Amino acid sequence: MKRPYNFSAGPAAIPEPVLQQAAADMLSWQGSGMGVMEMSHRGKEFMAIYAQAEADLRELLTVPSHFRILFMQGGGLAENAIVPMNLSRGLVTDFVVTGSWSFKSYTEAGKYCTAHVAATSSPECTTLPSPTTWQLSQSPSYVHICTNETIHGVEVHELPDLKTLGCDTPLVIDFSSHVASRPVDWSRVGLAFGGAQKNLGPAGLTLVIVREDLLGHALRECPSAFDYKIVADNQSMYNTPPTWAIYVAGLTFQWLKAQTEGNQTGVAAMNIRNKAKAQLLYDYIDSSQLYVNKVAHDCRSRMNVPFFLRDESRNEAFLSGAKENGLLQLKGHKSVGGMRASIYNAMPLAGVQALVDYMRKFEAAS
Amino acid sequence: MKRPYNFSAGPAAIPEPVLQQAAADMLSWQGSGMGVMEMSHRGKEFMAIYAQAEADLRELLTVPSHFRILFMQGGGLAENAIVPMNLSRGLVTDFVVTGSWSFKSYTEAGKYCTAHVAATSSPECTTLPSPTTWQLSQSPSYVHICTNETIHGVEVHELPDLKTLGCDTPLVIDFSSHVASRPVDWSRVGLAFGGAQKNLGPAGLTLVIVREDLLGHALRECPSAFDYKIVADNQSMYNTPPTWAIYVAGLTFQWLKAQTEGNQTGVAAMNIRNKAKAQLLYDYIDSSQLYVNKVAHDCRSRMNVPFFLRDESRNEAFLSGAKENGLLQLKGHKSVGGMRASIYNAMPLAGVQALVDYMRKFEAAS
Repeated sequence: MKRPYNFSAGPAAIPEPVLQQAAADMLSWQGSGMGVMEMSHRGKEFMAIYAQAEADLRELLTVPSHFRILFMQGGGLAENAIVPMNLSRGLVTDFVVTGSWSFKSYTEAGKYCTAHVAATSSPECTTLPSPTTWQLSQSPSYVHICTNETIHGVEVHELPDLKTLGCDTPLVIDFSSHVASRPVDWSRVGLAFGGAQKNLGPAGLTLVIVREDLLGHALRECPSAFDYKIVADNQSMYNTPPTWAIYVAGLTFQWLKAQTEGNQTGVAAMNIRNKAKAQLLYDYIDSSQLYVNKVAHDCRSRMNVPFFLRDESRNEAFLSGAKENGLLQLKGHKSVGGMRASIYNAMPLAGVQALVDYMRKFEAAS
Repeated sequence: MKRPYNFSAGPAAIPEPVLQQAAADMLSWQGSGMGVMEMSHRGKEFMAIYAQAEADLRELLTVPSHFRILFMQGGGLAENAIVPMNLSRGLVTDFVVTGSWSFKSYTEAGKYCTAHVAATSSPECTTLPSPTTWQLSQSPSYVHICTNETIHGVEVHELPDLKTLGCDTPLVIDFSSHVASRPVDWSRVGLAFGGAQKNLGPAGLTLVIVREDLLGHALRECPSAFDYKIVADNQSMYNTPPTWAIYVAGLTFQWLKAQTEGNQTGVAAMNIRNKAKAQLLYDYIDSSQLYVNKVAHDCRSRMNVPFFLRDESRNEAFLSGAKENGLLQLKGHKSVGGMRASIYNAMPLAGVQALVDYMRKFEAAS
């Protein structure tokens, strides 16, 4: 039976071959007589799973060797505290506030350092302020941006180069909801973090990729389990890691490596496919009379497409019809309303096409 | 094919029916067209899974209504910081140090409050100090004990009644490695915490059960994601919870509820079975010439049984023979050496019998 298309913003769709492999391995991984959830994290079986996942992710995201990859717990929300506890040194930090997520990061950081708003987007979060307009502090410990705002559907399509802005400080990016959907220019990044539950795997795993020279400066109140240096020195095994989530993410990395578009593979292929998926959906929305997306064209997210029905009284009919057509979890975030189609890596072009077909049919019947 | 018996200290064996159900649900939970890992944590499907898991756990552990059940991330190790950030108010706290885990709890707490050692066990951690000998502080914010030391194999068989010790303060118990193996006397407890990966499910889920009146006193530096009041007020969904781990724990709770021994069910049944399992193993060890367990009889753990071969040169032969006989992960913790058999709820009596049979055969061949 064909599975429905799942447009959840996260936890989100996982590639079907990944789920099939996870089910097949459940009682005995590779003849070990143990399921992955039952393995000691220090045994050779799980250590092999871990090493492969880390190596595959490093290859996929072309992470340079002077960056460490950490697999942690706590989610992006906990990182809003963990990042300033590790990187701020209790001094001034700069935040570009462009939506719900960066706003949360900014308010939480204030517990640990002097958090300063360097720029904000428009009140409805439908634009992004140009880096040339940012009011950066004199010597911030770091500058924080959210490169894809899941709720508002705005995405940074080119990372700012802080050096050209006269600021020689690490850039921190919250890339939770578009990690592995496109390449990252690591020359512009000090630290990147993200929850796994959008593009990488199950909830309960948090990815942190951090430049090695930024380790070792945690504030005293930073819990040991969240001190990046301790985590890095112990290969993410200072506390028991979320082993199942790492394993499923690892399967997802292998799936990603096998994806192709034209002569590209892996994240480069996803970049092409994700562009095409987003264009298909935005082009249709822009051409329709019923649907509207309010985000400025140059910062529309390729991953999260919020849209509204001009006649909001038809929202419920839209959602129930979508479900009947095998299109799930399209309701918008409660703080924004309307609809949202999250079209992460695991969503094929055919899924977006099915959504557009349904939207067209629904509009025609209006 | 019969699966081997898995004696891992954690992550540890999971009941086979739980694994089978998890595999069966992988691509579509109850006809929803979504696997559990793919569901929004705020959708009605996962909310139902969550509510059932919480209700089942409350029933299994007979948690009174004035306690809140929190499903968190971070593991027991993170709780070593999170508990004092929430409960200490920055004042004096008392610790009874009886092994590796309580020692870690004590040292971490020192970041947030004045942590004081009220008592310690013998140097090799083979005894437990009687509560009547504890040197409690004047008015500690709480008293912390680890009720089962996984590494050293010592277990508190009766919770202390702090009131009779003249101390009207909350007792905090780290019950990670024996939760749900026996009943808890909640009248003596203020807060209990534990990682799930021993007796409840997969790594990446941390259980906190806390008396309601203890909420709302977090230190300013406590990350919002770990402020118990915020977590409780948001039904553990302030940040995205580890949905898969909660689901598997929920399946384990249903398995537990169905277990019977004599006319007992659930945790009361496990209590009987776990006593019988431990007695079988300890009785054999005590009767043998080759094996030795050094823990005082009145505080031997029913969950974690460390033991040594008097002839340590035979350790490798013991382990490889065990593996050939389908007995996995018996190597002791690196800090203690020797062997360790963890016989959590998921280990049937037949598994312990198989271990004893092998040990007897190995000894006879010596």
